Order: sequence, then C-alpha cells, then structure tokens
Amino acid sequence: MIKKLLIANRGEIAVRIIRACKELDIETVAVFSEADREALHVQLADEAYCIGPTASKDSYLNFTNIISVAKLTESDAIHPGYGFLAENADFAELCKECNIIFVGPSADAISKMGTKDVARETMRQAGVPIVPGSKGIIENIDDAKKLANDMGYPVIIKATAGGGGKGIRVAQDEQALIKGIEITQQEAATAFGNPGVYIEKYIEDFRHVEIQVLADTHGNTIHLGERDCSIQRRLQKLIEETPSPALDEDIRSQMGEAAVKAAEAVQYTGAGTVEFIFDHVNKKYYFMEMNTRIQVEHPVTEMVTGIDLIKEQIKVASGEKLSVSQDEVTFNGWSIECRINAENPEKNFMPSPGRIEMYLPPGGLGVRVDSAAYPGYSIPPYYDSMIAKLITYGATREEAISRMKRALSEFVIEGVSTTIPFHLRLLDHEKFVSGEFNTKFLELHKVMES
Amino acid sequence: MIKKLLIANRGEIAVRIIRACKELDIETVAVFSEADREALHVQLADEAYCIGPTASKDSYLNFTNIISVAKLTESDAIHPGYGFLAENADFAELCKECNIIFVGPSADAISKMGTKDVARETMRQAGVPIVPGSKGIIENIDDAKKLANDMGYPVIIKATAGGGGKGIRVAQDEQALIKGIEITQQEAATAFGNPGVYIEKYIEDFRHVEIQVLADTHGNTIHLGERDCSIQRRLQKLIEETPSPALDEDIRSQMGEAAVKAAEAVQYTGAGTVEFIFDHVNKKYYFMEMNTRIQVEHPVTEMVTGIDLIKEQIKVASGEKLSVSQDEVTFNGWSIECRINAENPEKNFMPSPGRIEMYLPPGGLGVRVDSAAYPGYSIPPYYDSMIAKLITYGATREEAISRMKRALSEFVIEGVSTTIPFHLRLLDHEKFVSGEFNTKFLELHKVMES
Repeated sequence: MIKKLLIANRGEIAVRIIRACKELDIETVAVFSEADREALHVQLADEAYCIGPTASKDSYLNFTNIISVAKLTESDAIHPGYGFLAENADFAELCKECNIIFVGPSADAISKMGTKDVARETMRQAGVPIVPGSKGIIENIDDAKKLANDMGYPVIIKATAGGGGKGIRVAQDEQALIKGIEITQQEAATAFGNPGVYIEKYIEDFRHVEIQVLADTHGNTIHLGERDCSIQRRLQKLIEETPSPALDEDIRSQMGEAAVKAAEAVQYTGAGTVEFIFDHVNKKYYFMEMNTRIQVEHPVTEMVTGIDLIKEQIKVASGEKLSVSQDEVTFNGWSIECRINAENPEKNFMPSPGRIEMYLPPGGLGVRVDSAAYPGYSIPPYYDSMIAKLITYGATREEAISRMKRALSEFVIEGVSTTIPFHLRLLDHEKFVSGEFNTKFLELHKVMES
Repeated sequence: MIKKLLIANRGEIAVRIIRACKELDIETVAVFSEADREALHVQLADEAYCIGPTASKDSYLNFTNIISVAKLTESDAIHPGYGFLAENADFAELCKECNIIFVGPSADAISKMGTKDVARETMRQAGVPIVPGSKGIIENIDDAKKLANDMGYPVIIKATAGGGGKGIRVAQDEQALIKGIEITQQEAATAFGNPGVYIEKYIEDFRHVEIQVLADTHGNTIHLGERDCSIQRRLQKLIEETPSPALDEDIRSQMGEAAVKAAEAVQYTGAGTVEFIFDHVNKKYYFMEMNTRIQVEHPVTEMVTGIDLIKEQIKVASGEKLSVSQDEVTFNGWSIECRINAENPEKNFMPSPGRIEMYLPPGGLGVRVDSAAYPGYSIPPYYDSMIAKLITYGATREEAISRMKRALSEFVIEGVSTTIPFHLRLLDHEKFVSGEFNTKFLELHKVMES
C-alpha cells in the first residue's frame, strides 16, 4: 500500500485527495506555487513545499521540481488531480522511470485516448458507437467531399490534436467544408504542431452524458453509472447530475457496457470517464472522448453509489483489487453538483478574484461542500475561478433540486462576486425543472436576464 | 399541507427544521429570547420574533407568548424540536385548542409515555418486553421485599414521575431497598409532586439501543432501524451510531417489531424513539422509555436510510401518508454522530461559552454538519453547550470512524474550548474500535488521561 503521497495540484481537488489519504492513513505532501502559500491544501497536508513561481508552467506543470519534491520526501506516489499534469503521458512515463507510482492509467492509455483520431479508431474496433465520419485523418479533399455528401450536412471538422473546444469547425455545405478543412489544418499545425483533421456528422441537438468507469490491475473493469453534464457555458460544465433525466434503463445499461468496452480497449486502470454524445431524440449515443483522470463532477457519483472514487484510485494504484464488483454497485437517489465560481454572472461571468471576507458553507442533510476556501482566503487571479463545489443528494430529483436551492440560499460568501445567483435562477427555470434540455440550454435561454 | 410553521426552539434543531421547511416551500417563523438576537435560526427564518427574556421559562417555555406569535403570524403549525416544550402534553393540548397543528404526537400519547409506570404497564399489555419488576406503584413494603427477593438483588427504585437520571436509586440488599423506597418517595413528592415509585431488576451491563419509529394518521407505523447510544457521560449521550455493532439481524428485527408495537399501543403519530436496555451478554432487550419527539441523534438514521425525518414529521402533521412503507426502507452503510460541545474535556467537561473567533466546518464526502454556529457567534451561557453535531457516513464502520477522525481534525473552532480532542481520543480507543462496550464505557476508561 502507498504510504506517502504527493498531490501535484491545488484548490479543492488537492483538499479532496488529502482527505481521502487521511482516511486511509497515508501521509500527504502538498506542493504549491508562490501565489498559494496561504492555500488550504498547504495547511491540511502533513508537509508542503513551494515548487516555483505563480505561473503554472513554472510550478504546477514543472516536472523537475515536482519529481524532486517527491524524491526528497520519499513519497511513493503522485496524484495529479485534474487539469495540470493529469493527462500528460510524458509525466506519467517520467514517474514510472523514477520509480514513483502515478495515480492514474498508463502513459499508453493516456496517449491513445488523448489523440482523437487514434481514440476514434480504437473505439470503432472495440465496437463502441462512434459518430459517422472519416476513418482516420483526411488524406484528400475528394474523399472528404464524398463522405460529407453521403452523411449529409452539416458536418464537423476536428483537429486530431485539438481539445477543449479548440480546432473545431462546422461546415453547412461543400464550399464551407473545403475551406474549413484547409483553415483547420493550418490552425492545427500552428497550435498543436499536428495538421491532421478528420470529419464527422455534426449532431446539434444532444445531451452530454458520461459514464464513470473504474478498473484495477487484476482485469476488473466496472462502471458506476452516468452523469448528465448538458448544462454548459462555452463548453465549461456548470451543473452536473446523476442519474440523467434523459436515460431509460435500457440505454443506461447499453452505455455502461460500451464504456467498459472503451476502457478495456486501452487496458485502462484507475478511474476514468467515457463521455458520450447522447442524441436524445433518436435515443442513440456516440463516443465523444475519454477523460483519463478523476473529474470535477465525480462527487455526484459518490453520493448515489457510496463509493469513494479517490480511495479507489489510490487502492488500484497500490495494486489492490476494486472494492466492489459490478453486481455489488447499487444506485440510490439523485445527486446534483453546482460549481460555485468567483465570477459575476451579471457581467458576462467576468472573473472576480479577491479576498473572501466572510465564508460559511451550508450544512445539514444531503449537503456536501468540496472547497479550499475559508474566511479571509484570497482567491488568486492566476488559476481557475472555482470557489466551491456544492453537491446535494435527495431521494428524488425534485428533492435534490429543492435541497440545492436551500443550500445555495444559505451559502455565505462575502467579498467576491459568485455564480450563486445564476444557479438559483437556473434551478427555477422550467426547462431545467422538467429535465428537458440539451447542451445549448444556456445559448437558448437567458437565465440571468429573465 | 402546512403553509407556515413556527419553530418553538433555538440552536441547531431550529436551523434543522428551517432547512426542511425551505425544501418543502413552507414559510418559517423563528422565535427567540433576548439572549438569542444574533442567533443563526433568527437570521435564516422568514420572520423572527422575540418572545421574552433570557431565562427559558420566560421565553422558550412561555406558552402564551409562543401561541401569540403563532396567531399573530397566522402560522398553521408549531414544531417544538427537542427539549423545551417537545414533550409537554399541556402545550400539545393548548395548540389543539387554539387550532394550531402541533408537529408531534397527541397529548394523550405524550402523557402515557411520560408517566413511567403507565408506560411500563402499557408496554406489558402490548407484549413489549419490560424489565422484571413491580406491576405499577409500590403500595406496601412487604410486596416490594418479596418481589426483590424473587428477582434477586440489585434492584432499582424509580420514581414514576422522574426522568433524566433523577428519582433513581439502586439497592443492593433488603435494608437498602426499604430505606431507598422511603427516600425516593419523599424526594419524588418534593421534586415532581408525585411520590409514586416502582422497582425493577437492575441490569448493570447493558447497551443503550433505541429504535426510530414513524407513524402517520392513516394507520401506518414503521421503524427505521436502531441507534446505539451507549457512549454516555452522566446519562448524556456523546456519540451515537447506526447500525449497532452489538445487534444481529434476528435481534434487530425483533426490536424493530417491538418498537412498532410500542408506538401502536399509544396510537402514536409522527417521529418517535423507543429506547431499550439491551442486555448484550444474554441477547435480551427491555423497554426503557419512549421519547415522543425528534431526537438529537436522528441524523445517523437519515444518513443510512436517506429519509428526511423532519420532513416526515411535517408531512404526517399535515395529514399525509408516510413516504415509504416498511418494505421500502433500505439501510446502506454506517453512520456516526459526535456531539461537539463548548466544554473543556480536560477540566471535567466544564462549560466554555464565549465568542467563536474562527469557524470552519469540515467538508467533503460523507460529512454532515448540523450547527447554528458561525464565525463571530457568541455562545450564550444560558442554554445547552452544543456547538455542532458532526455526522459521518461510510460504507463500513471502519470507514465511518476514519472519516470522523479526519473531519474532527479538520474542524476549526477558535475562541472556546470544545470536546473535539475528547472525541479524537475516544475514537482511537481500542474498546471503541472493537465495538465492544456498554453504557459504563466512560466510567471504566479514562479517555482524556490515557
């Protein structure tokens, strides 16, 4: 078993990992940038070391300094959290070479899922549904034109090395396709050093539904149900819930099985998420991508299954078997997460860093707060703007929502603007309450101006 | 359905009830003594009214003022919480006369369970096991002597109107019995205005195990499993957990059925608790008393069943049916509650009221905090000393305990002494960890001096 673990991250996820380690009796080593000296993860860990200046590239992305601290402190393992080095295959490989356990999948699995056309082809071969489109990179424009005509417009052009909404372009007709491929190739060459693009049928009306998977090194791969993350703003998830109001039992179990197949296809180990485009009108689902790390929204799955995902990650990394088999996984009730950001929703979500003068998180039954904030904490402007994840649990979706509204209205955060008023409005929106929405919800409905 | 509810209480339970009302869309009216102007329940309620000076008898026990506020605000109902007026049959009756719903059982049920020898006889007739002893009040000393000889010493002498550890005396032999009955009768006449006493076989080595029951006005009575509250100091519970480490499935279901019988015997409605003496050596259980109100430790039951007990109370009071049948009740995992008091455990638990300078409750998976504290809040010295109830949930007892230790170590309360260090020591005690203890645990083991 891992005895000492370095957390190569900051904020709430660093705190989350430290909590799991404390419960497992594992010593913790925090690392921090110069801007994070007063951060909560630094205070909660057994030891803490500065790894560089404020800029992420000099601190939280600094391979050498992080590995040095791990060696210096005799840490057995490094947990990368999410973001930063979490999906960096080179870092995972370096850990291995340095005899440090990387709490995550193999560099090979990260790499295969991180390259879009490779992932797509791997899924196709494994029998996981993919969006109709080109088989691999576009080699000549005539093949692309023929394929687009066969599938019907609109089609989407994607850079294989892209991600996070970059290197993507929609074409409504043949002329736009020809021009789009050319531009996207040029952009991708510049931005990612890889000009490869491919095309897919463009599905406009869909929900973002993802499946949590867990796999150990003993050949066990299971899924823990879905999360619906359709409420997004510029591809950033704002609210996540499980179960999805759009899935029936049949689709749910099909998608679960498909996600297990996807993970098995790359010999995945640890916790991962297979994201799907769910065409809710036609009840069809297509592989979107796999996130080879723990996700921000993992708590909702923990609330309905009772399984501690961070502990499972650590146990798997230690060589242990998963604590449950697929048959033993049970789902109870409903859970929702709202991301509370230091942003002003009335000013186009402008970031609002600064000092939190007063802070009192909500409590009581069915309320969970994952946060690195405290009274007097100054949110630095250099990293992400999340102050807290507020998660509620209820016997039904209605109860989870009413509890979320109660908890949001109780949450005291003074000194910075937050997205709490936005969430309160959104949770009252009839379309949200009905459960009938897609990823365009926030484009279609003006939540803050209603 | 109730539209507006007055909470005739203060502290964390008032906050707890306000939270349930917000989730049910019920308007709330807080009442407060002059010492509680800055209290959290006053801030969270929709309306708040001062009902008198600091002394409880002039405020939280003031029938007239509380009823007046209810009438003034057009409240449909009054929730008494626990303590204060919660088990006052006269108040329940007065509410009824004033056409206000009392969120609790009938005055008759409160009264029957509140008079010890009546409760004992009612249970005997209903077939609920009672401790061997006298049938009703001791009428002459010779009958008592004969009964004690038949049962064997030690025996316990109890005032029928007593409670909370008062009006109780143990006799080891006949001489002590004769003298003890005389003294207890005199004391009871003075203290409670009722000299009646009865005797029971004295069971020394037992665990305090209680069963949560719920009943509606449509004839449905169910139980929600047990709570083990054996860790007590001077009859005050300090730690509670569910399930009990001492029960097997057979005893558990027997006790559950006995508790349902007990409730049905007095046409009980709402939430109540049947407390049992559990003789863990001989696997026998005996009725101790019934608490005809919500209890401090109700959250652990909510954590493992997912049922919101305050909401059920309110729904039952509104005339609705229980939201679940006995068959639909499921139990998942383990839950523990630690009562965090403003007391100095190193100075014989001396109360430590004062200003909370810094306050940051723990968070994350499986952690629940029920509290009325906030940064800057001054704990008044006039009422109970509870700052917070810290409740954890885990898949197993081991996980619930490790999570509790993690949460206790994270809990920041500065400015007053708290029982957090005591709980941390106790949770590490091998006898507690093993689950093998009885109600004398704290007499037998010096937790703070180890």
